[in-house]
Amino acid sequence: MFTKYLQDAFKVPLVIQLTDDEKCMWKNISVEESQRLARENAKDIIACGFDVTRTFIFSDFDYVGGAFYKNMVKVAKCVTYNKVVGIFGFTGEDHIGKVSFPPVQAVPSFPSSFPHLFNGKDHLRCLIPCAIDQDPYFRMTRDVAPRLGYHKPALIESSFFPALQGDTGKMSASDPNSAIYVTDSAKDIKDKINRYAFTGGQDTKEKQRLYGANLEVDIPVKYLSFFLEDDDELEHIKTEYGSGRMLTFDVKKRLTEILVEIVERHRRARAAVTDEVSSLNVWWMHLWP
Amino acid sequence: MFTKYLQDAFKVPLVIQLTDDEKCMWKNISVEESQRLARENAKDIIACGFDVTRTFIFSDFDYVGGAFYKNMVKVAKCVTYNKVVGIFGFTGEDHIGKVSFPPVQAVPSFPSSFPHLFNGKDHLRCLIPCAIDQDPYFRMTRDVAPRLGYHKPALIESSFFPALQGDTGKMSASDPNSAIYVTDSAKDIKDKINRYAFTGGQDTKEKQRLYGANLEVDIPVKYLSFFLEDDDELEHIKTEYGSGRMLTFDVKKRLTEILVEIVERHRRARAAVTDEVSSLNVWWMHLWP
Repeated sequence: MFTKYLQDAFKVPLVIQLTDDEKCMWKNISVEESQRLARENAKDIIACGFDVTRTFIFSDFDYVGGAFYKNMVKVAKCVTYNKVVGIFGFTGEDHIGKVSFPPVQAVPSFPSSFPHLFNGKDHLRCLIPCAIDQDPYFRMTRDVAPRLGYHKPALIESSFFPALQGDTGKMSASDPNSAIYVTDSAKDIKDKINRYAFTGGQDTKEKQRLYGANLEVDIPVKYLSFFLEDDDELEHIKTEYGSGRMLTFDVKKRLTEILVEIVERHRRARAAVTDEVSSLNVWWMHLWP
Repeated sequence: MFTKYLQDAFKVPLVIQLTDDEKCMWKNISVEESQRLARENAKDIIACGFDVTRTFIFSDFDYVGGAFYKNMVKVAKCVTYNKVVGIFGFTGEDHIGKVSFPPVQAVPSFPSSFPHLFNGKDHLRCLIPCAIDQDPYFRMTRDVAPRLGYHKPALIESSFFPALQGDTGKMSASDPNSAIYVTDSAKDIKDKINRYAFTGGQDTKEKQRLYGANLEVDIPVKYLSFFLEDDDELEHIKTEYGSGRMLTFDVKKRLTEILVEIVERHRRARAAVTDEVSSLNVWWMHLWP
């Protein structure tokens, strides 16, 4: 949603890399299965409503080659094995696919990797909105870029979303109750929030009225600060809930309303993404001249 | 010439990989220069007269991608870093381009890397005529193939051609007198053979008549056994020269005749290779249905 905001605000071309090769190499799933997952992933991305005249989504398995591969080789020549061990912690027992991968993630930072989009416009600057765990790849990229005569990419890194169980927990694919999925029903969402969302509120209504909630650890409040667009309402909730005038039940109810609405909206948008749209020849949206 | 013989004798499709990416990574030359060298190399190969309806020449920089890249990832997942260190002797200070390269050289062994040529014919067997220094790549390939459900490639390995200075010397690009080039003039060839070809013959005519030549170390005889098609004549020369009835001068003269003819023939054939032929879209000969 933040990336969509950037595109809307600045009317910029957006390139989205689906690293199906990475998934195949790290998760030990087949090439075909990684491609299928990437295709599903692409539908969720398309459903976010990016400007189709300015967006290019590609999968590595489909797109690696040509100018992109040449840039991969150029980057690879600038990075020693010792360096990637220092950055990513590979061991000698890791397969060489992992060692080969960092340049694949690096080169979409450079316009020359996409001659059909940016032919000759090598001066374009690249901004990468990404989660903070991708930082090592782009530190390496920024290190290498000047040696190739390319601009360094800039980064805006998002913090991780906390798990429902609280800041100390981690969202995990193996625990479906640690996160809300875009595939969850309204009832799923309500149940998960009521049962699993870690709260900073007090055990009883009386104690809550007396002591108020600890907003620092409260997951419903953290989620609201991501998803509640109205800053005034958010401030109001924090004040009322923190002071004890509002109960945990009511905060969770408001969060449930908001998440159900977002998920429903996403589900409708995703259903409208036809296989045709998401699987053009090499299932990308090309889209701008 | 041996590869051409195989194609003529067995009427088989021939795939020729030009590893311009390897040259770029090992020789520390630019992507553009490696591609230029590969293009020149392609002209020499085309001049050998392969059956254009059954030959596919490609460069890695042009062709890597799609099914080829998918096979690269599949191979890479089967090979640990420790393994390539054992095979190729990489160190931690080598760049990761080198570590990434073995799968690139491996995958042309598999028909599925070329869907436009062998679509669905995954049962085809692959024979690789190559110089013996390529052995490690294909040992690795044979090791990996069954784990991917592919046939192991078979190999016919040629020994290295000795340098003019003798078996202990090495042909070297930095010493133009260590080898005969296809670009040498008739006079160059004559001079090189007369001046630099290490001989097993005696110092003087008298001693040669008396003791004969040591054929084991004689470079003109070794070269003749590669290039003189007529086995009877070769045997005759060996007998006469070894026994002292033939002089070094005459052996060198016969070798010069043969090499001049081969080089002239190659030069004419190469001149007939137009830029058009050697630089189709991605400068390959595609060529069979």
